[in-house]
Amino acid sequence: MKILVLGADGYLGWPTCLHLSARGHEIVAVDNFARRAIDVEIGSDSLVPIATLQERVQTWREVAGEIIKIDIGDLRDPDFCDHIITTYDPDAVVHFAEQRSAPYSMIDRTHAVDTQVNNVVGTLNLLYAIAAHSPDTHLVKLGTMGEYGTPNVDIEEGWIELNHKGRTDRVLFPKRPGSFYHLSKVHDSHNIEFACRIWGLRATDLNQGVVYGQMTPETALDPWLATRLDYDAVFGTVLNRFIIQASIGEPLTVYGTGGQTRGMLDIRDTVRCIELACAYPAERGEFRVFNQFTESFSVRQLAELVADLYPDTVTVQYLDNPRVESEDHYYNAANSGLLALGLEPHFLSDTLVESMFEMVKQNADRIQPELLVPQAQWRSPTLTSEPVEAAG
Amino acid sequence: MKILVLGADGYLGWPTCLHLSARGHEIVAVDNFARRAIDVEIGSDSLVPIATLQERVQTWREVAGEIIKIDIGDLRDPDFCDHIITTYDPDAVVHFAEQRSAPYSMIDRTHAVDTQVNNVVGTLNLLYAIAAHSPDTHLVKLGTMGEYGTPNVDIEEGWIELNHKGRTDRVLFPKRPGSFYHLSKVHDSHNIEFACRIWGLRATDLNQGVVYGQMTPETALDPWLATRLDYDAVFGTVLNRFIIQASIGEPLTVYGTGGQTRGMLDIRDTVRCIELACAYPAERGEFRVFNQFTESFSVRQLAELVADLYPDTVTVQYLDNPRVESEDHYYNAANSGLLALGLEPHFLSDTLVESMFEMVKQNADRIQPELLVPQAQWRSPTLTSEPVEAAG
Repeated sequence: MKILVLGADGYLGWPTCLHLSARGHEIVAVDNFARRAIDVEIGSDSLVPIATLQERVQTWREVAGEIIKIDIGDLRDPDFCDHIITTYDPDAVVHFAEQRSAPYSMIDRTHAVDTQVNNVVGTLNLLYAIAAHSPDTHLVKLGTMGEYGTPNVDIEEGWIELNHKGRTDRVLFPKRPGSFYHLSKVHDSHNIEFACRIWGLRATDLNQGVVYGQMTPETALDPWLATRLDYDAVFGTVLNRFIIQASIGEPLTVYGTGGQTRGMLDIRDTVRCIELACAYPAERGEFRVFNQFTESFSVRQLAELVADLYPDTVTVQYLDNPRVESEDHYYNAANSGLLALGLEPHFLSDTLVESMFEMVKQNADRIQPELLVPQAQWRSPTLTSEPVEAAG
Repeated sequence: MKILVLGADGYLGWPTCLHLSARGHEIVAVDNFARRAIDVEIGSDSLVPIATLQERVQTWREVAGEIIKIDIGDLRDPDFCDHIITTYDPDAVVHFAEQRSAPYSMIDRTHAVDTQVNNVVGTLNLLYAIAAHSPDTHLVKLGTMGEYGTPNVDIEEGWIELNHKGRTDRVLFPKRPGSFYHLSKVHDSHNIEFACRIWGLRATDLNQGVVYGQMTPETALDPWLATRLDYDAVFGTVLNRFIIQASIGEPLTVYGTGGQTRGMLDIRDTVRCIELACAYPAERGEFRVFNQFTESFSVRQLAELVADLYPDTVTVQYLDNPRVESEDHYYNAANSGLLALGLEPHFLSDTLVESMFEMVKQNADRIQPELLVPQAQWRSPTLTSEPVEAAG
């Protein structure tokens, strides 16, 4: 298959390129380097050193003998969207190319607006380009389990059979997310469903849970193939952050009571899910939704797990929750779609928590502990954030 | 009350200003004249001549002795949003200030993106301004019944009690609208609900049906107080358009079978609904939704009604439907909220259809029949629309 990976330079985009390339697909890696620019903006950096996209692709060529093409541009530019669709005429477009941090979107008004505009406009431009130039192309779009929020009923996969006053309909599952970032993905989902309905596009919306881990078989082949690992309070996902905090002797910081429960998955399952979605495309006109996670954990459970596994003593620190969210709620979400296509999950109990401790220790000198402290908060609206103070 | 009316120069914004001013409220009329600019862009114009906003306000001062302030600016400018909230510290903000035409949003990719960015960004900027400067201010936001689409179950007012696998929750009513414009309002609704939830704002989302009529008691006081009446295929709502077509001897143009059923209301009920929403504000933290319509009709019923009432022979022409929508569907929507607050509807049977014939005839020389023909269409994605041909 010819597959465009949009956001190919990111935490998951890059391992996805490698995984698909290793399985013989023709990959074009598309990015605008927005994620690296945000590192500069907020003073963060990947815990693990990462090569440039050009170095990564060159290394992959040397290690695996496979060629990944690079095409740099911004989805907010409609002409660029037309260019990538007409030039490569892909079988599938895997779309990671969105601002993906909830705390980043909540920094202030500018960041909220920029997140929604970036994500919604990029996806709209792309939908038009696919519809106009290559309507048979399968759009595989990364959404998030966070779109659903925490309803007091079972979460289904995107759609639900609604029984109401003696009548029934299959409707989009009602969503009530918890940040302007998560809302941008809800907006995308509505726009994509409409595009499938009016233009007969085929799309798979992957509502992904919280991803943990940093290695796939392909990224492990060479240090220049490593993907980024974020530990800061803006981009660090919870389990990765706990492992890093334990490794450097910092307390694990739990927001609120830690009763928040989330679907999660191993990075190796992410890349496999993308492969499965591409291999079994949605039908023309179908807006297909999969919930892409393998297990659910509360934040407290994860903190206890890391504390138990870590060889030294680890403390858990409960911080005031910067977010507005339920800390004690029902959570039961369906995830049978990808399992039915053949996903064999890597469960957390079998896995790599201990293996990450050593990797973190090797990079401990790169950690800036001040980046672990949450800055964005949900409760009071910030119009313009304060100038950053230079670290003393 | 001090009330800001955003989009005060538009079809409904202006009669709302007058209605609220006549009842003793202090009104600030805010607009960026986007609607008049679109007239220039697409070569359309109100059937009824309309004065400038400055002339309108001056006339109102002479006729009623009431002062309406004017403040011109664009909600996409966050500083302007801060300015209007901090300067006037309003009790309520009535927000009509969005691009409101479904066909306009479907002209091409640029118009789809501009509609979503204009509407979503304006509302986001406003939410932040209210939350930061005046969180007790009641936001009265115009949504549309079109947000719901045509589900096969009863449409409730914004929320629904969801019973699923033995558990229940009150969730946002699932929406599946029919244009990028309608989608922009769905995005707004999700963003506003979130702002109420995290910042404790108070908001009323008025999902308005299709409005008909052109006169309120206040606009009828002087020709310089008239509001616009649109008959073109882009902005003309269906009943208004039929009345105009009958009056000039053109066939009434029904899209598809005309089985599409929609909630509708008289313009006099629109202004009363806004007044009621302001008089009985939502609670702090409440995202309140009312369905603002009084009766439901199919397009075919409306065509037959106009044909029956018109003194001369009127033909009905069934055109290929430019939209992708159900033409034969279940439709039963709740609207008890505003009735409970005291709305006494003007039903179509009692009303002004005949009274509009004369008004249209007086302005018949202003009609450009070519504007009645739909240009935007839903089925094929247009990247960039063709240059406009000069009328021969």
